[in-house]
Parts: sequence; C-alpha cells; structure tokens
Amino acid sequence: MSLYLALIHYPVSNKNGEVVATSITNLDIHDLARSAKTFGAQGVFFVTPVPSQQWFARRIIVHWSKGVGAVYNPTRKVALELVRLVNDLAAVGEAIHTETGRAARFVATTAKERPNTVGFVELRPLIETTEDPYCLVFGTGWGLDPDLFEQMDFVLEPIRGPSNYNHLSVRAAVAIVLDRLMGRNT
Amino acid sequence: MSLYLALIHYPVSNKNGEVVATSITNLDIHDLARSAKTFGAQGVFFVTPVPSQQWFARRIIVHWSKGVGAVYNPTRKVALELVRLVNDLAAVGEAIHTETGRAARFVATTAKERPNTVGFVELRPLIETTEDPYCLVFGTGWGLDPDLFEQMDFVLEPIRGPSNYNHLSVRAAVAIVLDRLMGRNT
Repeated sequence: MSLYLALIHYPVSNKNGEVVATSITNLDIHDLARSAKTFGAQGVFFVTPVPSQQWFARRIIVHWSKGVGAVYNPTRKVALELVRLVNDLAAVGEAIHTETGRAARFVATTAKERPNTVGFVELRPLIETTEDPYCLVFGTGWGLDPDLFEQMDFVLEPIRGPSNYNHLSVRAAVAIVLDRLMGRNT
Repeated sequence: MSLYLALIHYPVSNKNGEVVATSITNLDIHDLARSAKTFGAQGVFFVTPVPSQQWFARRIIVHWSKGVGAVYNPTRKVALELVRLVNDLAAVGEAIHTETGRAARFVATTAKERPNTVGFVELRPLIETTEDPYCLVFGTGWGLDPDLFEQMDFVLEPIRGPSNYNHLSVRAAVAIVLDRLMGRNT
C-alpha cells in the first residue's frame, strides 16, 4: 500500500470559473505535511509551474527540514521531508513511478457533486489491498480545473456533514479525507 | 442536539511546559468557522483574555461577516457569524447556558494519551441523544494547560492514524474530530 497527496496550484478555477495559478501558502505546507505524516502517506506534492512560487516553498521546506527549524522542532522536520515541488501532474506521476515502480492511480477530490464518484468506504479497501500507489489530488482556489478530471482514475465523493454547507478549507478537507481512508475511528 | 467548539489561547503550554498565551491567527478563525458550519456546530469560541488579541480577531470577524468580505464571499459570512470572543472557559459556559438554557458538557481534546478518555464511537451517540449542549475544547501551542482538564466532563481519546506520529495542526484535528462525531462517512 502506498499513498501520496498532490495539492494543485495550477490549473485551478477562480471565483469566476477562470483558470488561474494560486499562491503556495506556508500553512498549507505545514498542515498537509503533518496530516500526511500522521496518516502514513509517502509524499506530498505541491504542484505549480511558477518558479518564484517553487523558490518560496523550497525556502520553507529547507528551513524546517535542514535549517534552524529542524533543530527547533524535529516533528516538523520529519513531516516537511515528505514535501516535493513539481511543475505539473505528469511530474507527480513520474516521481511516484520512480519511487514505486508502478503507475499511480489518481483520485480527484471535489466539494461539488459530480457523476461517477467513488465513495470513501469503496476506496479505502482498494488502497489497502493493491500494490498500485494512489495519489489523492486536491485543488486550491475555487477547485480543480474541470479539464483535470479527464486525467483521473477516480473522483472521490464530496465530504458531507449534517448541513448543506460544505465550504471546508483544503487543510480541513485533506485531514478528513486521510482520516476516512487511513485513520482508526475508535 | 447542540455542539460548540472552543479554541483556547490561554492557558496553554509552550514547548517547555510553561503556561503561556498564544496569538489568535487569521487562518484558525476561517478554518474552524468553516469546519464548524459544515458539521452543524452552533458556535466557535476563541478564548483569550488579551484585549489586543480580541481586537485583532474582531476586525477579521467584522470584515467577513458585516464588511466588504461579506459581499465578496457570502459563504465566509455565514461561517464567520459562528465565531465569538471570550475571556475564559467560564464565559464559554455562560454563553452556552444563555443560548440553550442548559449547562454545557465540556470535552477536552488531546494529542497525548491520558487516563479515562472517551472514544469517538462512545461520544457520538451521547451528543446525538442528549439535549445537553456539548463543547469540544481544543488547545493551541503545545496543548491545553494540564489544570484545565480538571474542569472537563470528558477527555476525548487522541486521533490515531496508522503511524505513531500524531502532530496534527489544530485545524486538521478540529476537522477530523467534527467529522468523526458529526460526519457521514459513506
């Protein structure tokens, strides 16, 4: 079993449905890395083709995984070591193939209802029982560019609570998806 | 059934186990409010006795619930309207009593193993079947001041994944706890 995360900063939608690139944020790096480490994911890909964004993110990663931060807070170090920076989803697939020798199965996440989604209780045993690596793909901004869904093997159903409101932050959504697929709810 | 959240900024522990006050962060306000709204909580208390911190937080809340932000992003408005600022846990209890006419049952959360914890699968039906309001209490910094646990009715067991690493952000922990207690994992 192997599981990866990808957080897409391009191509994603903005409020008006246009394709944009969003900025990588410091807290997304920390929160996703810590959630990934807690739930046993092997890597977290931050996806953006913007060089200045990769430069910014790399400074944070180096600070906490090799610099002063690694000594100050070793639990951050082991989480931040999971983070990689890549240009696009193809590069995610290549990196996972290099590490595992297998093609990744990509799982899109979405807050909107879409056709042909897979449920959490269906997906969990698939991840547990196969040797194929799975990569959960999350969007920033107003969500993944619609064209990206054509590159996915699965679309995971939206997270639902008791209300019709489901505007979770990506940090909250990643945490819940990982817990539902990998956690032990006792 | 009624459920509330409280995020404690004082008294909490720092890295060395000393009692400190932490700063309220913009992103905690947004993330906790959005998670609370998604999972049907009635209110989110940010607890700090520091006036400048309450002033800072109030500016953010007003911006998104009544100011320019409320027009720009109405989904933030309805989430941020759940947020209240109070000095201490006693004030949380008073506010909940005023709203519900009943005494709140306080549930501490912790990342560390502690004696006499209640499990998620035990707590969920308690919340669902009683008319007493429940308030989930989360710490910032290195966690709730140990003395606070004496004021609690329950201590919720730590979130566990498949690894021994459980250094989740408070944003991730709140999301997972709400999902386990109120979500529909389908």
